[in-house]
Amino acid sequence: MRFGLLGAGRIGRIHGLNVAARADAALVAVADASNEAASALAAVTGAHVAGIDAILADASIDAILICTPTDTHADLIEAAVSAGKAVFCEKPVDLDAQRIRRCLKQVAQTGKPLMIGFNRRFDPSFAALERRLRAGEAGAIEIVSVISRDPSPPPVAYVARSGGLFRDMMIHDFDMARFLLAEEPVEVFALGSALVDPEIGQAGDVDTAAVLMKTASGRIAQISNSRRATYGYDQRIEVHGSKGMLRAGNIHETTVESATVAGFRADPVQNFFLERYAAAYRAELEAFIAACRGGTAARPSGLDGLKAQILADAATESARTGKPVAVALEAN
Amino acid sequence: MRFGLLGAGRIGRIHGLNVAARADAALVAVADASNEAASALAAVTGAHVAGIDAILADASIDAILICTPTDTHADLIEAAVSAGKAVFCEKPVDLDAQRIRRCLKQVAQTGKPLMIGFNRRFDPSFAALERRLRAGEAGAIEIVSVISRDPSPPPVAYVARSGGLFRDMMIHDFDMARFLLAEEPVEVFALGSALVDPEIGQAGDVDTAAVLMKTASGRIAQISNSRRATYGYDQRIEVHGSKGMLRAGNIHETTVESATVAGFRADPVQNFFLERYAAAYRAELEAFIAACRGGTAARPSGLDGLKAQILADAATESARTGKPVAVALEAN
Amino acid sequence: MRFGLLGAGRIGRIHGLNVAARADAALVAVADASNEAASALAAVTGAHVAGIDAILADASIDAILICTPTDTHADLIEAAVSAGKAVFCEKPVDLDAQRIRRCLKQVAQTGKPLMIGFNRRFDPSFAALERRLRAGEAGAIEIVSVISRDPSPPPVAYVARSGGLFRDMMIHDFDMARFLLAEEPVEVFALGSALVDPEIGQAGDVDTAAVLMKTASGRIAQISNSRRATYGYDQRIEVHGSKGMLRAGNIHETTVESATVAGFRADPVQNFFLERYAAAYRAELEAFIAACRGGTAARPSGLDGLKAQILADAATESARTGKPVAVALEAN
Amino acid sequence: MRFGLLGAGRIGRIHGLNVAARADAALVAVADASNEAASALAAVTGAHVAGIDAILADASIDAILICTPTDTHADLIEAAVSAGKAVFCEKPVDLDAQRIRRCLKQVAQTGKPLMIGFNRRFDPSFAALERRLRAGEAGAIEIVSVISRDPSPPPVAYVARSGGLFRDMMIHDFDMARFLLAEEPVEVFALGSALVDPEIGQAGDVDTAAVLMKTASGRIAQISNSRRATYGYDQRIEVHGSKGMLRAGNIHETTVESATVAGFRADPVQNFFLERYAAAYRAELEAFIAACRGGTAARPSGLDGLKAQILADAATESARTGKPVAVALEAN
Repeated sequence: MRFGLLGAGRIGRIHGLNVAARADAALVAVADASNEAASALAAVTGAHVAGIDAILADASIDAILICTPTDTHADLIEAAVSAGKAVFCEKPVDLDAQRIRRCLKQVAQTGKPLMIGFNRRFDPSFAALERRLRAGEAGAIEIVSVISRDPSPPPVAYVARSGGLFRDMMIHDFDMARFLLAEEPVEVFALGSALVDPEIGQAGDVDTAAVLMKTASGRIAQISNSRRATYGYDQRIEVHGSKGMLRAGNIHETTVESATVAGFRADPVQNFFLERYAAAYRAELEAFIAACRGGTAARPSGLDGLKAQILADAATESARTGKPVAVALEAN
Repeated sequence: MRFGLLGAGRIGRIHGLNVAARADAALVAVADASNEAASALAAVTGAHVAGIDAILADASIDAILICTPTDTHADLIEAAVSAGKAVFCEKPVDLDAQRIRRCLKQVAQTGKPLMIGFNRRFDPSFAALERRLRAGEAGAIEIVSVISRDPSPPPVAYVARSGGLFRDMMIHDFDMARFLLAEEPVEVFALGSALVDPEIGQAGDVDTAAVLMKTASGRIAQISNSRRATYGYDQRIEVHGSKGMLRAGNIHETTVESATVAGFRADPVQNFFLERYAAAYRAELEAFIAACRGGTAARPSGLDGLKAQILADAATESARTGKPVAVALEAN
Repeated sequence: MRFGLLGAGRIGRIHGLNVAARADAALVAVADASNEAASALAAVTGAHVAGIDAILADASIDAILICTPTDTHADLIEAAVSAGKAVFCEKPVDLDAQRIRRCLKQVAQTGKPLMIGFNRRFDPSFAALERRLRAGEAGAIEIVSVISRDPSPPPVAYVARSGGLFRDMMIHDFDMARFLLAEEPVEVFALGSALVDPEIGQAGDVDTAAVLMKTASGRIAQISNSRRATYGYDQRIEVHGSKGMLRAGNIHETTVESATVAGFRADPVQNFFLERYAAAYRAELEAFIAACRGGTAARPSGLDGLKAQILADAATESARTGKPVAVALEAN
Repeated sequence: MRFGLLGAGRIGRIHGLNVAARADAALVAVADASNEAASALAAVTGAHVAGIDAILADASIDAILICTPTDTHADLIEAAVSAGKAVFCEKPVDLDAQRIRRCLKQVAQTGKPLMIGFNRRFDPSFAALERRLRAGEAGAIEIVSVISRDPSPPPVAYVARSGGLFRDMMIHDFDMARFLLAEEPVEVFALGSALVDPEIGQAGDVDTAAVLMKTASGRIAQISNSRRATYGYDQRIEVHGSKGMLRAGNIHETTVESATVAGFRADPVQNFFLERYAAAYRAELEAFIAACRGGTAARPSGLDGLKAQILADAATESARTGKPVAVALEAN
């Protein structure tokens, strides 16, 4: 399978290198506003540097990886599927649910595969947990808890154009909650505070937040987020059901443990999302290729992207108004 | 110090035996509606069996332990402090906050110590965590999480007269959240479902619940409860602050671990609250005696009991109405 | 059952209090060279202070707890069984295997129960591990590992008359290895060094030691000992068999864990043997009473005491000569 | 740096792919008795297939990776250094210490770098532990423990020509013990049994073994090996010193943990050495390249290979004779 990559920044580089490392795929062309970034990646992957239009027009290219800034995603998805390409796009499709709906309509008309980059579903531990959950190991699901803490807050300038914590950061956890709940949330209640960086609050956003959601049958999801965790990138899930609990968590930097008069000490957990989710990014690409080849639906789908966005919008509104917000995801 | 015990049921028996095991205290008299229960406890502690009135009238008795049914607590507290006794009373003071307020007013007039049995504050691990939190080890508090799952649901008949999960079970977690937050909640949002036992739902209660609370400065508390946990009595707390995290948890039945083709297996956690909190009950009594002796205020106080009750009432209302409920604890 | 206690030092006090705390047993009399120690314990247990001869002559006493210095054990066991008492004696019976053999012969002639205080067999975790081992959970036993580290070395004066590390400290581990192996060792190889305190070396003893033993069928036991462990009293066992591994270990002081930039930190493990083995001492007494009542053999028996002593003697010799020492325990 | 690879079997393939994945190195040529194996690896690395002589004669090649059968190692090392190449050779140099000595003499005459593939030194956790040990975190070293258990025994045919467990398997642990002890062993005592597979015993080898070693200053090393571990590839080290303990261990297949009525269950540990030590093989190659570039001595050196072999020989003799064997590594 031959890939074109749009966007050679941090995450684009990861996907590009993962494509190049596969025996059954090739990175053919790379586009980026920065010629330097594009050239650097092309040099180590055997790809050539090209413009976006040229890449979409290249009939030898089967699939497009979209890793450009968020506000270009919907347009590029539409252009790529119209050009007959399979598309993998980093989350989110767009910050506006209506724009996402229009985009998905056009994707549907072309019948081309679209997969959205909710990478955490492909973390080997989270994926194994979900499989065991589906196999009934915890029984009927009662409470899903998702904890997600970034090591440190982004620059305030980034925050200002990010759509806010619920859309920028917690969107991953909304997708994870849906992935685990196996039933759509019908209500979202959110609390948010700016406790880490007062400037984030002045910019109108929060850096510490918690959400409660409920499904029609009464299942409950808890999410908590923070833009700071001194001990590493904290990514945990825990699901409680009628037969027991399944949980999965962090990986320490090494397995070394010391024991002294000060007690027992283990390393911080892996600090960087590219390290923490390295295996997830590889498995995600594998799944995209498998879906394209097998003619099966790519998951997480564009609709999964839309639903996570709707939940993030609802949480944003709930945190603003102080009231729970009803959502009706099935209707979308 | 000489003690009279009102109520020789399961929890009364624990407190009575703990008094008897101390070198600096004696259990003098035991009252119970069941003569059998009273006699059995009296026999192993060297106490005599007596009626409530006789115990309160006994000038040789310094302190009263109230372990009778909830609906007698407020009356007995008032009678005991009026008789000049120091009082330790199991939670809750009453299911009606107004009744608690009247009771506390009378206690205040007598100046006698009143301590409420929120035993979990005295769990050695939870108490150590709180001390380290106060010493600043986690920095400024951001998120407090409390998980509390009973091994199995109580009989529906009990549920019906319990005041509901939020007042009967989660009240402990409201107290724990206040203990850890070090700032009063101003808002409570609650979700509840009957997922464990449909008859609990038919009785108008829930068995699975989650709460979010916020303080004036923006600190967030998460609580989750279930009436069922197949793997033991699940009691965990986790506090996230500007410098890091402090958490404390369960104790496995033994330290034995097996490793076979099926993986690594550890024991369930301690299943029974009297075992899980045995050390807490002893430390609680120690604290009560120290407060009585030292003339210092007994903590958790009657006011702590009232505040937990108000939060439980707010959660009950929130779960019923689907809306967050504002609370103003400082005014009480 | 009515008990007389000989020796009211640290360990005697533990046993005396455990007897007094039982509903089915009473501590009747206490003897100690120090009248103060005897009186203090008598005061809190309801016992009276008496001389050894008077206690042995008291027909109302069923059982004797021997907690006096080692060099009195064998004489007191003989005197007690001759007086018709059941006997529980702290390890070791004697530092001289020949003296133990004579003592056991006399015990056998009286037919009275004799149990030796290898308390670790009664630790709830170690006992559960042994039961699961016997039930076949790890399959056929291949390697038994025992780790035992004291928090800090004893005074050199104590070391000088202790019989040496292998007889004073590792004797517990020889018993534990036999308990777990379920087959007698036939060979002992020992290494010892004085790395903790050079004065221990000058006194002719070691403070750091390791032993390898082999059974006739080829099972292997590893033991390591140190007189120092900064992180608490380190007591671990691990058994490897054809189906997998069973291990059991230490208990941390609390369950509190912190996570900061410095990593994850848990408490030291319980530091004091009386705390670490508190439950074991209670279960040990329970087993002694059950054996006396049920007419079953008390275990660990006097023969278990002899065998552990023989292994300790062999290790002492091996460390001295640098050669493995053959032992033939079945012949004793 | 341009590499030639001799031997494209399981381990050769790993090293070849690791070279090819680096930006600063290239795999130029591959030789293997099986043309299929050589071609398959050449195809995915951009190398060409060639004979050994041609590779050694190729002036454009800087370094040779020797991954051929053991009995060819010494000859190939000599040929490669004589051809002016830097050499990385899989352990062992040879099963005969005298042959190793001759080989190292010739290497020394050429002055070319020689590094031996004791990959475990490069495991990120073991390497970090060693660095922290050297930095004094555990104080003065007292006891080093190494546990190494293979998931399942090799074919008896392999065992027969392997040199025996001590030379084939425990040689890694002898190197690890030396790496951690920071002082040479002067005595080796070994016990071995055939408990896993009786045919291994009939072939004159053992499958379950334990070793004790002592250094001149009295430090003690314990090693235990088994050819079977149902729960995965068990690789643990633990070092006890005057200030405390440092340990490092296994990695579970995922972080998923279940909690049910049966207790808490975690995954088996990584089962396959190529997965368990994947990062170690990459770091090992990095170290070899750095040494070649920097003109520094490659470690582990040929002398490290010789010393591990001498300890393995001593253990083999000890297990055979039942006596400890003195070794004098510094003289080599």
